[in-house]
Amino acid sequence: MAKTSFIHEDFLLTTKPARELYHRYAEREPIFDYHCHLSQQLIADNHEFADLAELWLGGDHYKWRAMRTNGVDERFVTGRESTPREKFQAWAETVPHTLGNPLFHWTHLELKRYFGVDELLDGSSAERIWKKANAKLPKLHTQDLLAQSKVAVVCTTDDPADSLETHARIRRNPGKLKTRVYPAYRPDKALAVANPAVFNPWVEKLAGAANLTIRTFDDLVAALKKRHDDFHAAGGRLSDHGLEFALSEPCTLAQARTIFDAARAGKPASPDDAIRYGSYLMFEFGRWDAARGWTKQLHLGALRNNNARLLAKLGPDTGFDSIGDFPQAAALARYLNTLDSTNELPRTIIYNLNPADNYVFATMIGNFQDGTVAGKLQFGSGWWFLDQKEAMEWQINALSNLGLLSRFVGMLTDSRSFVSYPRHEYFRRVLCNLLGAAIARGEIPNDMKLVGGMVKNICFANARDYFRLELAPEFAA
Amino acid sequence: MAKTSFIHEDFLLTTKPARELYHRYAEREPIFDYHCHLSQQLIADNHEFADLAELWLGGDHYKWRAMRTNGVDERFVTGRESTPREKFQAWAETVPHTLGNPLFHWTHLELKRYFGVDELLDGSSAERIWKKANAKLPKLHTQDLLAQSKVAVVCTTDDPADSLETHARIRRNPGKLKTRVYPAYRPDKALAVANPAVFNPWVEKLAGAANLTIRTFDDLVAALKKRHDDFHAAGGRLSDHGLEFALSEPCTLAQARTIFDAARAGKPASPDDAIRYGSYLMFEFGRWDAARGWTKQLHLGALRNNNARLLAKLGPDTGFDSIGDFPQAAALARYLNTLDSTNELPRTIIYNLNPADNYVFATMIGNFQDGTVAGKLQFGSGWWFLDQKEAMEWQINALSNLGLLSRFVGMLTDSRSFVSYPRHEYFRRVLCNLLGAAIARGEIPNDMKLVGGMVKNICFANARDYFRLELAPEFAA
Amino acid sequence: MAKTSFIHEDFLLTTKPARELYHRYAEREPIFDYHCHLSQQLIADNHEFADLAELWLGGDHYKWRAMRTNGVDERFVTGRESTPREKFQAWAETVPHTLGNPLFHWTHLELKRYFGVDELLDGSSAERIWKKANAKLPKLHTQDLLAQSKVAVVCTTDDPADSLETHARIRRNPGKLKTRVYPAYRPDKALAVANPAVFNPWVEKLAGAANLTIRTFDDLVAALKKRHDDFHAAGGRLSDHGLEFALSEPCTLAQARTIFDAARAGKPASPDDAIRYGSYLMFEFGRWDAARGWTKQLHLGALRNNNARLLAKLGPDTGFDSIGDFPQAAALARYLNTLDSTNELPRTIIYNLNPADNYVFATMIGNFQDGTVAGKLQFGSGWWFLDQKEAMEWQINALSNLGLLSRFVGMLTDSRSFVSYPRHEYFRRVLCNLLGAAIARGEIPNDMKLVGGMVKNICFANARDYFRLELAPEFAA
Repeated sequence: MAKTSFIHEDFLLTTKPARELYHRYAEREPIFDYHCHLSQQLIADNHEFADLAELWLGGDHYKWRAMRTNGVDERFVTGRESTPREKFQAWAETVPHTLGNPLFHWTHLELKRYFGVDELLDGSSAERIWKKANAKLPKLHTQDLLAQSKVAVVCTTDDPADSLETHARIRRNPGKLKTRVYPAYRPDKALAVANPAVFNPWVEKLAGAANLTIRTFDDLVAALKKRHDDFHAAGGRLSDHGLEFALSEPCTLAQARTIFDAARAGKPASPDDAIRYGSYLMFEFGRWDAARGWTKQLHLGALRNNNARLLAKLGPDTGFDSIGDFPQAAALARYLNTLDSTNELPRTIIYNLNPADNYVFATMIGNFQDGTVAGKLQFGSGWWFLDQKEAMEWQINALSNLGLLSRFVGMLTDSRSFVSYPRHEYFRRVLCNLLGAAIARGEIPNDMKLVGGMVKNICFANARDYFRLELAPEFAA
Repeated sequence: MAKTSFIHEDFLLTTKPARELYHRYAEREPIFDYHCHLSQQLIADNHEFADLAELWLGGDHYKWRAMRTNGVDERFVTGRESTPREKFQAWAETVPHTLGNPLFHWTHLELKRYFGVDELLDGSSAERIWKKANAKLPKLHTQDLLAQSKVAVVCTTDDPADSLETHARIRRNPGKLKTRVYPAYRPDKALAVANPAVFNPWVEKLAGAANLTIRTFDDLVAALKKRHDDFHAAGGRLSDHGLEFALSEPCTLAQARTIFDAARAGKPASPDDAIRYGSYLMFEFGRWDAARGWTKQLHLGALRNNNARLLAKLGPDTGFDSIGDFPQAAALARYLNTLDSTNELPRTIIYNLNPADNYVFATMIGNFQDGTVAGKLQFGSGWWFLDQKEAMEWQINALSNLGLLSRFVGMLTDSRSFVSYPRHEYFRRVLCNLLGAAIARGEIPNDMKLVGGMVKNICFANARDYFRLELAPEFAA
Repeated sequence: MAKTSFIHEDFLLTTKPARELYHRYAEREPIFDYHCHLSQQLIADNHEFADLAELWLGGDHYKWRAMRTNGVDERFVTGRESTPREKFQAWAETVPHTLGNPLFHWTHLELKRYFGVDELLDGSSAERIWKKANAKLPKLHTQDLLAQSKVAVVCTTDDPADSLETHARIRRNPGKLKTRVYPAYRPDKALAVANPAVFNPWVEKLAGAANLTIRTFDDLVAALKKRHDDFHAAGGRLSDHGLEFALSEPCTLAQARTIFDAARAGKPASPDDAIRYGSYLMFEFGRWDAARGWTKQLHLGALRNNNARLLAKLGPDTGFDSIGDFPQAAALARYLNTLDSTNELPRTIIYNLNPADNYVFATMIGNFQDGTVAGKLQFGSGWWFLDQKEAMEWQINALSNLGLLSRFVGMLTDSRSFVSYPRHEYFRRVLCNLLGAAIARGEIPNDMKLVGGMVKNICFANARDYFRLELAPEFAA
């Protein structure tokens, strides 16, 4: 790699110790992608992408938001009226306007790593880059992309009502695939009693997936538990929940039954009842995870679907979500404490979307570290809007100042894109740069074995030891 | 300028690219002051200041707070018992105690730019500086100060109940004034139904300004709309609102009428009713702005008038306001979404007073970027307590990490002082320093045309294109 | 000191001006420890520590949290089943895992300053360091440690129900002790009406300490006031309160009496009543402090006792507290304003546990600076989880950008440990490093007399002048 290109070998590494940490301890570590939104179907099919637009622009609401902010008409963002090449042009012309945004870095990292492109993308270089990248796609099927990035594990995100058949197919026919692909259990719709139009069809779908009849709340819990078992049998060891804040209000079984029956009869639960009902299930889920030795993930703090006009037109997850400012501490403490009181608190990773709450979360986990598992409670890596340099540094600094960075399970992708693995490289450069600068300032000993060992663990080994997922032999301990 | 003075030509510019960005792309750009509190009277009169105390200490509650914190008796802060020279001495003796506060920078920037003073102000240099500055005041009338700073636009802040006669006078007799002076529509008192003692006299005043009788709520709305039209005719294209949080509760016309009638009868509205009533009007204002192609400004988050004892003695805006910690996200999303749902969301700038909410606001605007106008929703520049280096950097970084810095309309003055234009210089130095450092670290390409062009746009052209105000020919596109 | 050791003479001092500021202006200043949790008993007894485990691990919940996070079984954290040497080994093996945590710095600073240890502590160096440190303990009795650190004042933290006899003993028999030891008045349990099981025994104990019978609420107030007088007679000039948020709801005397009577009868107060009742007393306490010329301390924002299982096993203050996210601004403004309205607001220091609220607190104090005392309202130094480099820098920057750093009363220890005085050294290095870097960047004049004078004042003289405590002659002004 030439140093003169924007993405050069020491990109983001501003000190000598940073460069040594990265190149000696981080660069070659495999990837443990314990949370993402990749399509198992595309993995199973070893899908080949038609063009750079399909690969890059298909479902990427980060890029869509940037284009809209740049004054690009929706026709060229998600519209059916424009061609892939036209959309790519609109994106290319937006890229120079993303200076200072992580998209500018990700874009050029991905062009460099997958396509060997060294020039900057803009309106005038678009045609050259389009051709060069598209020409390489036949050698970049989904499984090639996973292999090239040394991805040891992919945990997809799955509704308990979803079939696990594709996962089974991957397991039965791995071909040359070394990456282990596991489902993660995300039962968000089980909580949707405030929205019977979503809830009721989902209950039917769950009944089908579990092969059980669901008439009562107790039937629902049984079906959810059955699927938890099925996920376990499929190798899954993680659950995941997307919530505005932790649900931890007291709720009796009788109350949960009443709220369920009303929703099934088409009557939306009140906000308070929805929280109560959700709390009941969240405590159940926690106990199941603890009993099975799973890790629970809580994604807290998003304010979703803010733009009704464009939501109606484009559906969810299209770029109209943002960061909320909900009170978090008391409800989260109550959730964790209730499970802990009966020794049923699973290993738990808490992701925070509002950086103003970093210190709240980083100290909260300390309350429940009980010495049974190193780093039992984890403050998750910078999530969504926080998956960029300044916010990653905040998360790392909060964790290290208030907990033990050395026990951190590190980066995940949380992406829908098969070419977002350079975000692990990005994270590692940020981590090494931060530690290297601390060494250069004398705040951390200039002991490469000590600090490099920690870096290496954060890149891969901590996650490997923490999640207890079965790996291919080349990635196992 | 000698490099040896505290304010030297490379003040705040710590890298080579920063210096190049500032001196080549930022330094000579004109100023677009789209929000301030300057007196149109003093502009129309081309006022000459009596002395440095009138110019500097007359209405500056930043300086007053610093003096009180430094143990200066109120007599020398705002008291009538002390002379201008005595007040200046008290301020001069406070200045060395402001090390690390933006006042220390602003003070010496202003002394340097307007009076050529290079030494630091303190008790012992006070007499020399007092004389030197006062001697220059005859050549620094208000219009001289605007010309010297190349101010293309000043938008004053006006109550709809205020006369626009002074604005008309400036328009009729501009003399040599190249600065366009426009009113901005700030109807905060229209919401004051919780405080009939303020509300009712204001209604009468509004009736006079609109030349309409106001008996009913519908009359009030008509009068406010009439004034909106009048402001438009006077060239105004901006509205502005100072609120603790966005007002966006549902309120029927019937409810608004009832609340209005009660307030007119002297009965204060309850807090909930005041929010409801204010929401009704805020939605109206939004629709008017959208229909007219105006830009709406929301100043959110101040907790005002905290000190009852000194408020009673000195009145509002004398230094007893601070930063609130109100929940912001849900109410703001509802406000913007309600207007957007009917395609009546105007271009909007949201200023945030609590930096803990930066990421909330910077992601909120992304929900309503719809591709119709580049940077349609803006996260406003560091406001009030945040108008200083670290908080400016936070705002710039939040905007660039979560949106498009390149579309930012940049700095405003928000000041009552005619010598606060160096705050634009200050902002530009901070901006160039931040970008220059990113170039030096390799995070932004070392492409001066690309980055310099962005800087130049943020200094002036983005605002010129966004606000659609008529400019003098030398400032037009 | 060799530069090659981790803790060298320029530790944390990354610029030339920083080094000059520290070594010329900060290093030799005495310590004014106006808030800590040292045991007056151990001072009075001039206690000798049995070993490094007693000195270091006895009550240090920072270390305990780190050990639990590192997967250390409770047996080796607080358990009675393990030996001091075993606990020390567990701690030593945890230390390398604390890279990036302030514990890593504190540990090696303390080893260096008290025991001359230059090597890093880990599992393999543990035995050597254990022996070396233990050998020095006979010369490091509690009073030796205070003398070595030049501690002019220690304010312990005392319940009004506690005896002041030990304080009197120290006063009567100071021996060679130059440190003045004063009680600080912390009546938190007087507010515990929601918890009669705690409240009622405490009322009896208070009655004993005050030598008064307490039957009614008025008796309680009288007893509390009697103890306030007693603390004053013992030289105390500070009060202190640990609250989630400021208590400032209206409460009549009749209401307070009713709530008191119910709690005395064993009926827990409702949350609202507890706030009301607490507010009544907090206003009383404020008036007493103002009348006596005391300084009030408010510690706001902790969320305590989150882990019921381990709280039941280990008791409070064992590592299960964290940072809350309570609304703070409105209630605090109301508290300060109510006292200020009648000119009964004492000098007040407000400590904030959630750094997201730094700007709220740093601007809140400005509302009540009335020119009567320089720096009358103080934004307290980084507290508890914030007592580390990044959070200290945030606090210093918030204070300097929004108030006057020059009037800051500086660092306190807030510790249970006799070897935590190097935290003052740590604070001073952080302060000098921050100011030195600002000088190097040209943001503060390179005027050592000006900046160094400010540093010196923050280290000691500001506190000496602000608190008005009687000092030994060698420390007096």
